[in-house]
Amino acid sequence: MPLSKPTAPFASETGDPFLLTPGPLTTSRSVKAAMLHDWGSRDANFIAINKAVLAQLCEIANGGEDYVTVPVQGSGTFAVEAMLTSLVPPKGKVLVLVNGAYGLRAKRILDIAGRKTVVHQTAEDAPPDLKKVEAILKRTPSITHVFAVHCETTSGILNPVEEIGALAAQYGKGYLIDSMSAFGAVPLDARAVRADAITASSNKCIEGVPGLGFVICRRAALEASQGNATTLVLDLHDQWSNFEKTGQYRFTPPTHVIVALHQALQEFTTEGGVPGRGGRYRNNCRILLDGMAALGFKPLLAAELQAPIIVTFHMLDDPRFDFQRFYDGLKERGFVIYPGKLTVADSFRMGCIGRLGEREMHGALDAVRELLRVMGVSAPSTQAA
Amino acid sequence: MPLSKPTAPFASETGDPFLLTPGPLTTSRSVKAAMLHDWGSRDANFIAINKAVLAQLCEIANGGEDYVTVPVQGSGTFAVEAMLTSLVPPKGKVLVLVNGAYGLRAKRILDIAGRKTVVHQTAEDAPPDLKKVEAILKRTPSITHVFAVHCETTSGILNPVEEIGALAAQYGKGYLIDSMSAFGAVPLDARAVRADAITASSNKCIEGVPGLGFVICRRAALEASQGNATTLVLDLHDQWSNFEKTGQYRFTPPTHVIVALHQALQEFTTEGGVPGRGGRYRNNCRILLDGMAALGFKPLLAAELQAPIIVTFHMLDDPRFDFQRFYDGLKERGFVIYPGKLTVADSFRMGCIGRLGEREMHGALDAVRELLRVMGVSAPSTQAA
Ligand SMILES: Cc1ncc(COP(=O)(O)O)c(C=O)c1O
Ligand SMILES: Cc1ncc(COP(=O)(O)O)c(C=O)c1O
Repeated sequence: MPLSKPTAPFASETGDPFLLTPGPLTTSRSVKAAMLHDWGSRDANFIAINKAVLAQLCEIANGGEDYVTVPVQGSGTFAVEAMLTSLVPPKGKVLVLVNGAYGLRAKRILDIAGRKTVVHQTAEDAPPDLKKVEAILKRTPSITHVFAVHCETTSGILNPVEEIGALAAQYGKGYLIDSMSAFGAVPLDARAVRADAITASSNKCIEGVPGLGFVICRRAALEASQGNATTLVLDLHDQWSNFEKTGQYRFTPPTHVIVALHQALQEFTTEGGVPGRGGRYRNNCRILLDGMAALGFKPLLAAELQAPIIVTFHMLDDPRFDFQRFYDGLKERGFVIYPGKLTVADSFRMGCIGRLGEREMHGALDAVRELLRVMGVSAPSTQAA
Repeated sequence: MPLSKPTAPFASETGDPFLLTPGPLTTSRSVKAAMLHDWGSRDANFIAINKAVLAQLCEIANGGEDYVTVPVQGSGTFAVEAMLTSLVPPKGKVLVLVNGAYGLRAKRILDIAGRKTVVHQTAEDAPPDLKKVEAILKRTPSITHVFAVHCETTSGILNPVEEIGALAAQYGKGYLIDSMSAFGAVPLDARAVRADAITASSNKCIEGVPGLGFVICRRAALEASQGNATTLVLDLHDQWSNFEKTGQYRFTPPTHVIVALHQALQEFTTEGGVPGRGGRYRNNCRILLDGMAALGFKPLLAAELQAPIIVTFHMLDDPRFDFQRFYDGLKERGFVIYPGKLTVADSFRMGCIGRLGEREMHGALDAVRELLRVMGVSAPSTQAA
């Protein structure tokens, strides 16, 4: 079967459509080109590259000497499962804050691993109720950890990880954060939020290719975690102590993915780190929100809840609007969007992350405008009337 | 830090040293170039590519309609752990055949997962004793599965997976095979050996890049495995049923690694499948064994036990032979070899797999010869005297 690629009128450096999705994302040509070499996993250069990657990830979270990054092969969910099953002891109990699919997934992982949970669930367009969180912590001393999702990608909502961290600290609980889709673009200070661990992956705001997750762990929490894990491959403590001893992965690492991540991190630095990367994404997000509003699309979230990562839009309330045609038409024009994952509303999502800037966001808006015209969907002014 | 690559006098298409190791390996330029695109994970083209990859892996094992391939992100060990913890029920008991580090690793995985084991261990240069295996099966009816390593990469020994399978079938046991380093080069017929599952990975004899393992499962065994797994990410049944429903991965797949694997599989077909690939490796292995013997190096294994994958050599018994100098000198000359992993003897290993042929094997031998000269190590004729 040929690797046929669509040739879109609006296309990236490599001729691929732009991925306005929560990942995998559009990466730079130079990130992909870093994979044009083969590296031995015991090669001193590779070991140095890997070490630099882990150190920089820790720095991005302002982890200092107190924190250490432990990589986990596989997608982000592998790292989430490694974090939860390595750092929560078998007798632990986790308060899981849920307002979307990724909070629910953490709960499912804990259930499968036999860790007890207490769930505080809010609607997909609502942050956790901090008063209720505090009440739960107050009346449930058996809780050992609090788990929160930073940007809940289901809707694109930004959860108040600082305030949650303050409550966790006040009640003496460990604090675990899934910052998968926000890490690198939304500031997150591990020490300030007093996190035990923060997890994310190679292929979101860091703009690497998919295949590596990581967990930035407070050293003291990691040290105390020996023997918690119920798997070999997801055991963070075991991988960490191997790095301390040999600088090496326990098992064959995805060398190409790691070298691409190293390149992505250099480009991240060049762009100005979290402020630079986050600034571009905020600008993308604003262009998208404004442009889509002008075309009649309403976002799910109130402005103050919207993370600059991915935006959920309600479907247009017009019988001539056909989502499949819209999706396919955008793809033909060089832009891949994402179906909705909401339970509360019929919706779709458009991402602002990856190697995309003003030009691409305007290009996407032009394509949306043209498709509405082709479908004969009424202009927003008429629609409002 | 720059991605500085050594410029070796003898270098691959991409200027990298050749990897005469058990993996990651030297891959073709075209396999790596397949990663120069970004793919959406819900993209119809990507889904078709992934489906073709899984189908072809099943064909290589002659699985027919009875078998199905379930991919597992991460290295080979992730797939081994997924196989053992998904297919062996919590109350199962596994006869683990051990003659090296990978058999021991399987035992460790089963211990951590709380699955009972019985171990039959032989020396690193000896296959399992089939009479003893049969005696264990006869006297231990509580055994549910037999686990064997196809090529035990620790030494390079080829284990008798057909004979072990016949015993497993005779005593009505499930049969699980780690064929990591042999799959694609040494014939293995899933139906003929009556395997419940065979596991391998993207980056060994298939010559893809590292980052994806897979388990070729007998459908009936997979269907019966629902609820066995004690993790979310390594649950083969859950991933398989998701493919049946949607054709998609449950979590972000390593798209670049998978597209590279697709390219690698096309090149595998072009080379003539298992006979073609295996033929090249056997030839590499013969050149290596003959050439090294002429230089005074003795292989660990008797010829009939040697798999055409990786060869373990004893260190030269000469005070002027300095392994670190030998290793570094070979690397400077464009060839990366591997330290030994044996407990029984001081040794090193040289692989015959990956994108290597006669020219590279002779190049490596020339470099070995030159280094012996530089180190002033006596010629084999003198040594024998
Ligand atoms: C917040 C969050 N958590 C976890 C995940 C899971 O990551 P992956 O799909 O890489 O397994 C995602 C993926 O989008 C995410 O956005
Ligand atoms: C027989 C065997 N099993 C398992 C593994 C583990 O694979 P990985 O290093 O990809 O985790 C290897 C690796 O060389 C192997 O040779």
